[in-house]
Amino acid sequence: MKFPDAVRLIADDLERVEALVRANFQSDAPMVPIIGDYIFSGGGKRFRPILVLLSSRLCGYRGDRSITHACVVEFLHTATLLHDDVVDGAEKRRGLLSANAKYGNEMSVLVGDFLLARSVLMTTRDGSLKLLELLSDTVALMSEGEILQLVNVRNPALSEDEYLKVIHRKTAALIAASCMIGSVLADAGEEKEQALWRFGEKVGMAFQLIDDVLDFTADESRLGKAVGTDLREGNATLPVILLLQQASRSERHELGEMLGAAHVGSEQIEHVLALMRRYGTLDSTVERARAFIQDAHRELRCFEPSPYLDALKAVADYVVTRGQ
Amino acid sequence: MKFPDAVRLIADDLERVEALVRANFQSDAPMVPIIGDYIFSGGGKRFRPILVLLSSRLCGYRGDRSITHACVVEFLHTATLLHDDVVDGAEKRRGLLSANAKYGNEMSVLVGDFLLARSVLMTTRDGSLKLLELLSDTVALMSEGEILQLVNVRNPALSEDEYLKVIHRKTAALIAASCMIGSVLADAGEEKEQALWRFGEKVGMAFQLIDDVLDFTADESRLGKAVGTDLREGNATLPVILLLQQASRSERHELGEMLGAAHVGSEQIEHVLALMRRYGTLDSTVERARAFIQDAHRELRCFEPSPYLDALKAVADYVVTRGQ
Repeated sequence: MKFPDAVRLIADDLERVEALVRANFQSDAPMVPIIGDYIFSGGGKRFRPILVLLSSRLCGYRGDRSITHACVVEFLHTATLLHDDVVDGAEKRRGLLSANAKYGNEMSVLVGDFLLARSVLMTTRDGSLKLLELLSDTVALMSEGEILQLVNVRNPALSEDEYLKVIHRKTAALIAASCMIGSVLADAGEEKEQALWRFGEKVGMAFQLIDDVLDFTADESRLGKAVGTDLREGNATLPVILLLQQASRSERHELGEMLGAAHVGSEQIEHVLALMRRYGTLDSTVERARAFIQDAHRELRCFEPSPYLDALKAVADYVVTRGQ
Repeated sequence: MKFPDAVRLIADDLERVEALVRANFQSDAPMVPIIGDYIFSGGGKRFRPILVLLSSRLCGYRGDRSITHACVVEFLHTATLLHDDVVDGAEKRRGLLSANAKYGNEMSVLVGDFLLARSVLMTTRDGSLKLLELLSDTVALMSEGEILQLVNVRNPALSEDEYLKVIHRKTAALIAASCMIGSVLADAGEEKEQALWRFGEKVGMAFQLIDDVLDFTADESRLGKAVGTDLREGNATLPVILLLQQASRSERHELGEMLGAAHVGSEQIEHVLALMRRYGTLDSTVERARAFIQDAHRELRCFEPSPYLDALKAVADYVVTRGQ
């Protein structure tokens, strides 16, 4: 099964998620519906809602609550995007002006807070304390991950292990939670809950590593922002960390300067790209992502064969193949 | 009874709240404990925790959960302060550098998110869906209030009614929720819950109106920030709105210019202060606050006489007298 086939299995549910997203960013506070419309119409694959819906079906859940929780994880994800774009001073997102560039940092902070509050409110009204604890744990982890990233900006000594800890919280925690939700809704038991959490954890790690690679290798039109944005913002991602481990002393010095610089030009990014190709660090990063996906597949051994099992595995595979 | 007597009634509980606050901003993410310590050691009257503790006692609640919820409302309040200071570009808070001025806007946004997440997590672990709904409703209202304020920055046509709607969400909602928590913990019934909510709502309105007055009349050392900060940031508060209603055409024009200006000097603030004194708009604002407090007292009629009832009323009175 391929990614589009997996999505087709839950196409009706995804449409209901879209409608619920739109209904829930309504507010009599001006600008909230306008900014909500701008953000949610601006693309995005609804990757986390897809995981909620497929894991729910995999565990045999057939009710409406998966729609609610799919909306919740998308709101949470969007709230963190809004705040991250402020933190990173981002200018573009998915080929459009980022919300902070268009509406200002102030509005991005406040609309992010509004979406956070709405996601807690929707989960509360759903009534599951277990899912509320999962949600609030996840939000705390995500903010810690972002803080860890921020304190390591322009740090050329960031180790691989420390970096993996950052992305585990920043990205993998919410993807893991999205996968686990279905098993909680279906009351599928501890074993399956843990299996889906660990599956999502690994998919999330791979997701971020491929994002790190794409930030250097995708062309600008596909990326929707400038190539090398992470490095320009002073963030050393895995391809750069691996390069710092292997490069010559003078190359390391050069990279360190670049990480610390207020402005990094396109020629410098080209140069780093050439170095990463020479030392094979982009390929090594993709390899690590692929290994995470293989591990993720293995986590699902406790499930009986089903189209939804195939679909979840197809979504996991897509995380790596979208980069090629 | 006076405010210090009221606080003395719950002094032991307040110490336990302080300890819980400190325990709950711990994190292995660097900077979080440092910034937490900076914020929570920097003063603050713990006004909202005091209301949680007193309303709990008033309703006969004697357990530990009021300590948790007192900590939650202080976390929520602090999270919104952190985000508001970013939105307003504040430089000072309680006589110290504001957290955004000291640690950067980015860190303030993320530590605010962390505190929000922790407050949801603490409430979830407490296990009351009713209090979770109150909390998430309140956070949504507060972010809407801040958004309403932001869209009305530099708007000289903001009406009194619209302004009251802004502060109802921005300030009164959390104070109302703080007062209601005790009745929920004590299972005191709908009538008392509603009475305490409405009491807090009115105390909250008065609280913000007196803050608005103090922003003009308190001296800088007591205020902990520059006099006239609201006006300098382009926010028309009630004393200014009332002045705009009553002033001459040329004075209105002058005020409108000031609201729209990027920089407002101390002499201009002095001039506005003279106008507000001439038209009596500071006194009118205090009068309105006093009327809210009288209404607040009346909301508590359904409670039997007790030291805690006197204490809550004393706290309400203090909201107005602290301004004199």
